[in-house]
Amino acid sequence: MALLFKSSWDRADWWRAELLKRIPDLDFRVWPEVGDEAAIDYALVWKPKPGDLARYRNLKAVFSLGAGVDHLFADPTLPKVPICRLVDRALTRGMAEHVLTHVLRFHRNLPGYERQQRAFEWKGLPIKLPEERTVGVMGLGELGGAAAATLADFGFGVRGWSRTPKTIDGVESYAGGGALDAFLSKCEILVCLLPLTRATEGILNRNLFAKLPRAACLINAARGGHLLEEDLIPALDTGQLGGAALDVFRVEPLPRGHPYWTHPRILITPHVASVTDPRSSADLVADNIRRIDAGEAPLYAVDPAKGY
Amino acid sequence: MALLFKSSWDRADWWRAELLKRIPDLDFRVWPEVGDEAAIDYALVWKPKPGDLARYRNLKAVFSLGAGVDHLFADPTLPKVPICRLVDRALTRGMAEHVLTHVLRFHRNLPGYERQQRAFEWKGLPIKLPEERTVGVMGLGELGGAAAATLADFGFGVRGWSRTPKTIDGVESYAGGGALDAFLSKCEILVCLLPLTRATEGILNRNLFAKLPRAACLINAARGGHLLEEDLIPALDTGQLGGAALDVFRVEPLPRGHPYWTHPRILITPHVASVTDPRSSADLVADNIRRIDAGEAPLYAVDPAKGY
Repeated sequence: MALLFKSSWDRADWWRAELLKRIPDLDFRVWPEVGDEAAIDYALVWKPKPGDLARYRNLKAVFSLGAGVDHLFADPTLPKVPICRLVDRALTRGMAEHVLTHVLRFHRNLPGYERQQRAFEWKGLPIKLPEERTVGVMGLGELGGAAAATLADFGFGVRGWSRTPKTIDGVESYAGGGALDAFLSKCEILVCLLPLTRATEGILNRNLFAKLPRAACLINAARGGHLLEEDLIPALDTGQLGGAALDVFRVEPLPRGHPYWTHPRILITPHVASVTDPRSSADLVADNIRRIDAGEAPLYAVDPAKGY
Repeated sequence: MALLFKSSWDRADWWRAELLKRIPDLDFRVWPEVGDEAAIDYALVWKPKPGDLARYRNLKAVFSLGAGVDHLFADPTLPKVPICRLVDRALTRGMAEHVLTHVLRFHRNLPGYERQQRAFEWKGLPIKLPEERTVGVMGLGELGGAAAATLADFGFGVRGWSRTPKTIDGVESYAGGGALDAFLSKCEILVCLLPLTRATEGILNRNLFAKLPRAACLINAARGGHLLEEDLIPALDTGQLGGAALDVFRVEPLPRGHPYWTHPRILITPHVASVTDPRSSADLVADNIRRIDAGEAPLYAVDPAKGY
């Protein structure tokens, strides 16, 4: 059987080695060396161009090289086959680690101490116990749920917002649009780990910021499309938001002239919150190939109607 | 019975309220309103001047307002009565939180991403799993032990160095001067939480830095006296050390002209790693007063020979 690999980010040689360990007879092809298009059974891809996948007419499934599938649903000609997210313990742990790092950075007010250092100022800033600090996580799926659980384990007051109610130890669940304002009203630190869909595109905007407590901090590790980019700097400059740690952007790499680069209250990381590691991620891809070959349903196939 | 409170840092009114809740008949006196010096039974102090305590000739014990007692042993006329450290769950948790925050900051290379942001650079930096990262904790007492355990719980590779061997889950114990070089040889992030004694004064120096892996990062949350201040910047400038997060200094507040303020690889926090909160700390002080009054030994009395 043949699998087509296409990504300008992930390393084909690593994926080839890891998948061949698990499925020795796999015909692993790397785009653009596709060969006979009709022979391609599976596509393992990151951000294919719209129309790319439609040409493989015998495709049985598409596997995303990341946790998100928005890069696939952006294509109106996406084949009507199972579309599978990547779910992997290392990817999930990496995201929880990114979130805890940035929550602790805001919780302990390191940006404030950095500003004081530049001004030669020696002054203790207000501090709270973690249980006195409310952190809100938008999106309680694989990644958001793990991040929320990690924050709760550490002792933070954690609440989560998702489409449907979720049960996670130590995390207060808010579900649906009607609960959004109540959720936001206490979030001193807001973490976005939503899937990017038509319903969540641009959700981080001035109206939402206005519902947060004053000087709340924003951590976006989901997709650049969640944030209405032009609304962020005004919210920071008025003090409605106290700071932002952004890992994702509408256009990546973030263009050189973008005002985020030089804003004193924005910390930029270059989409590194959590990265796919084929040493562990290849397990799920190999497992899904075996399942589909055996006529079983693949794991972590997304619902095209919801888009995640 | 009478207790004398003296500190230019801690709030007398908070301590008075919390201690009177526990010992309603306590005669709580705030320096300089001492009254009859011979009537003072207990001293609850932070950084008294040398000679200060010698005048209270009926003193039964001295209670430090912090975890360290080096500020007391600096006084050659310190009365020969029990000298007690402050041990308190909130103080211990606060220190573990400070250490985890700064370890994660170095582990995820936030200083590197901040440098890249200033240069408009979009590039992922090498990342490791926490279990691939070795963090060393010097000092495994109340605070160091808790910090090491917190790091181990998160999954870091943790080793600790102390005078005598310690058993902490997930922490590799190195004990005594003979084991120091072996301990240091793998520490990518080094945390100092030693007590300050004649044996540990100036222990963070060029010789020690040279034994760490190249580009190791230093977190000092113990005392400024542990660091030979003039050795730090050369080690950072040659790249032997990759960064330093300092909460304590020889002279505090750190003097305006000190070169640490402006060094790009030093993050300064103004001795805020963990602060005493009388709401919880008053328990131990009240308990120790009751114990001494009942003829029992107080808790957390230090060994004057060791100095901690």
